[in-house]
Amino acid sequence: MTETVITSKEERLNRLIAKVRDLPKVPVAVVYPCDKESLRGPIMAAEAGVIEPILVGPAGQIRALAGEFGFNLANYRIVDVPDSHAACDEAVKLVHAGEAEALMKGSLHTDELMGTIVSRANNLRTPRRISHVFVMDVPTYPRPMLITDAAVNIKPTLEEKVDILQNAIYLAHALGIPEPKVAILAAVETVNPKMPSTLEAAALCKMADRGQIKGALLDGPLAFDNAVSAEAARIKGIKSPVAGQADIFLVPELESGNMLFKQLEYLSFALTAGVVLGAKVPVILTSRADSAETRTASCVIAAMFAHANRKNN
Amino acid sequence: MTETVITSKEERLNRLIAKVRDLPKVPVAVVYPCDKESLRGPIMAAEAGVIEPILVGPAGQIRALAGEFGFNLANYRIVDVPDSHAACDEAVKLVHAGEAEALMKGSLHTDELMGTIVSRANNLRTPRRISHVFVMDVPTYPRPMLITDAAVNIKPTLEEKVDILQNAIYLAHALGIPEPKVAILAAVETVNPKMPSTLEAAALCKMADRGQIKGALLDGPLAFDNAVSAEAARIKGIKSPVAGQADIFLVPELESGNMLFKQLEYLSFALTAGVVLGAKVPVILTSRADSAETRTASCVIAAMFAHANRKNN
Repeated sequence: MTETVITSKEERLNRLIAKVRDLPKVPVAVVYPCDKESLRGPIMAAEAGVIEPILVGPAGQIRALAGEFGFNLANYRIVDVPDSHAACDEAVKLVHAGEAEALMKGSLHTDELMGTIVSRANNLRTPRRISHVFVMDVPTYPRPMLITDAAVNIKPTLEEKVDILQNAIYLAHALGIPEPKVAILAAVETVNPKMPSTLEAAALCKMADRGQIKGALLDGPLAFDNAVSAEAARIKGIKSPVAGQADIFLVPELESGNMLFKQLEYLSFALTAGVVLGAKVPVILTSRADSAETRTASCVIAAMFAHANRKNN
Repeated sequence: MTETVITSKEERLNRLIAKVRDLPKVPVAVVYPCDKESLRGPIMAAEAGVIEPILVGPAGQIRALAGEFGFNLANYRIVDVPDSHAACDEAVKLVHAGEAEALMKGSLHTDELMGTIVSRANNLRTPRRISHVFVMDVPTYPRPMLITDAAVNIKPTLEEKVDILQNAIYLAHALGIPEPKVAILAAVETVNPKMPSTLEAAALCKMADRGQIKGALLDGPLAFDNAVSAEAARIKGIKSPVAGQADIFLVPELESGNMLFKQLEYLSFALTAGVVLGAKVPVILTSRADSAETRTASCVIAAMFAHANRKNN
């Protein structure tokens, strides 16, 4: 074999969309969609049959934007509020009323939306810490890669890692992986007192043994090669039920996770989705640099999680 | 475009080999090549026209191995010594005599070889700290990626990062990149007091301004996407002469570097080479899991560095 052929992102996105297209649409409160990209994202996802957006923001401004860029808003509910602060308040009410089953960031600042979600007064929290999961479709790996936390928690403690893992495990369940395999990543696969992440990996495995983390098969520390390649693990003499077939990749801290997901996105043809978990409903955070594919893929993942939420509540 | 075609590693390795095949061969002391893979590596590199190996170890044992696996040793010098300790000593002598211009690890333990190199008594050190550089040919990136330090220094201090960078810069020069562009990686592209690597990035840039680091164009902190994609940098409003075209990637610490290079190797079709710098001669460290391509590619990189050493001394 002298060359390898990679399937396009568009085709992989279409396969992902097919997972939710025939399900009842999940209503998503889009918080303050007041610039072109943040309005276009939910509309594209809606037109692809992925979600039912509820646009929460200044109706006049939203309609003017739609007119300017030729978006058809006829099918979507608009909740008219004067500013981003009021949009956050209204989105909270929609969630509590059961009218929105997910939130999507518009053009307000991430901190404002996250502040709304973590504020105890708004009662959107669960007992678990808020964390972020990237779901990446990478053509060179035979299953979705769930990478956490590469976006919200900078240097999580062991206790925080428990929540981060449990959030990702629930997401894996929602994506149809009943017992996800979790690789707890480090630079080495042995416990090394000089590398705290290896000690924490051992502790997390024992916590899973004791039922303190539920619904997954954990192993770690594992280096990245052992996590993704059974052959690499075999050569190193590592016997692990996770090696070579990890679904969830727990990174030691945000810095390594950030490089990992960006590398997958920029150099490994990954189709990227991201979702914030640990609140009563999933939250789709978007970033200015996100592609249209990423915005739609994130809506699919949030919708699948919301469907699982429906069943569990 | 619905699919992408990736050139094979073999073809990329052949292009790399072509860079040294017509140059005078660099003599490489292979320290204790006493198992199949560690003997086969230098012989394959020699047969490809990359290096001239000097096999330093128990001659009887080496010849028996060659007989067992059908390797032809007729063209290679063997320096007969009884054990790995004596092989290290003899390799040091060959370097000081100018008979070896690089070292290659055989089947002894890495710590034994590295201990020999860093021992002041052996006088193989330079003023700079020892560090490791991966040189990766990644089909989705238009130039070689030099990643440092993802193998030797676990959590380098700022002072150590200066040496790590300078070693990598000299290697870039040897590879024909006269003024390499250096991305100092972090999870974000802004200086954030909570993330020490971002402060160190700013300090390293200023040190380059002051001539404390020479021969390269530095910028950082840069997140991985800004380092490899001019478009990602443009969207974030980052003006940087390095963004999108980095040659050298300085990682904050070993853990993130380890994930980065393994991800490139396992999921991005990278052809990987590695070399240890900061000693009087380059050192090729191999790992049991290394492919034949990696062993040969590492010999090419070390040979190119040794050629530059010749010119500079």
